[in-house]
Amino acid sequence: MLKVVAQFFIKNGEVEKALTLAKTLVLETRKENGCVSYELCQSLGKDTHIVFIEEWESQAALDAHFQAPHFVDLVPKLQAMTEREAVITAFNKVM
Amino acid sequence: MLKVVAQFFIKNGEVEKALTLAKTLVLETRKENGCVSYELCQSLGKDTHIVFIEEWESQAALDAHFQAPHFVDLVPKLQAMTEREAVITAFNKVM
Repeated sequence: MLKVVAQFFIKNGEVEKALTLAKTLVLETRKENGCVSYELCQSLGKDTHIVFIEEWESQAALDAHFQAPHFVDLVPKLQAMTEREAVITAFNKVM
Repeated sequence: MLKVVAQFFIKNGEVEKALTLAKTLVLETRKENGCVSYELCQSLGKDTHIVFIEEWESQAALDAHFQAPHFVDLVPKLQAMTEREAVITAFNKVM
């Protein structure tokens, strides 16, 4: 099982707009084959720091996600609201 | 609901020992009140990069975790195996 932690650092003043977009991304992504869970979280210490915590059945499912219409449409829009590059790390779930 | 992403950067040569200790920490922590989930993951790109992805019912449950005997015993031992400071971020689960 694959876990992905995808951290985005949103510009001040863009947080509400980014969250609205991110919520749509969550709802669409949860419908994908092989998506075990896909959560949206916001840092307690810094509301501009948001993270998607994802679980995928396989690398193939994750690869398909990157081609999904909602991903291709929404992720560049989200990136345009960030103040620096996203930090995205893929993990193997040990337990 | 609170999510915590706790990233540890283990020294080369200490990974197996760190994982063994981390697995014990997972098993004990999952017994705690207010622990919704507590997962151990290892970066696909760098096996020295491990992360606990945690979910807690409340801040009070998380605060109690920091006082739990297994936490007080095992976390300093894990930290002694790291090459740099852990990166621990607490998040509010938006959805």
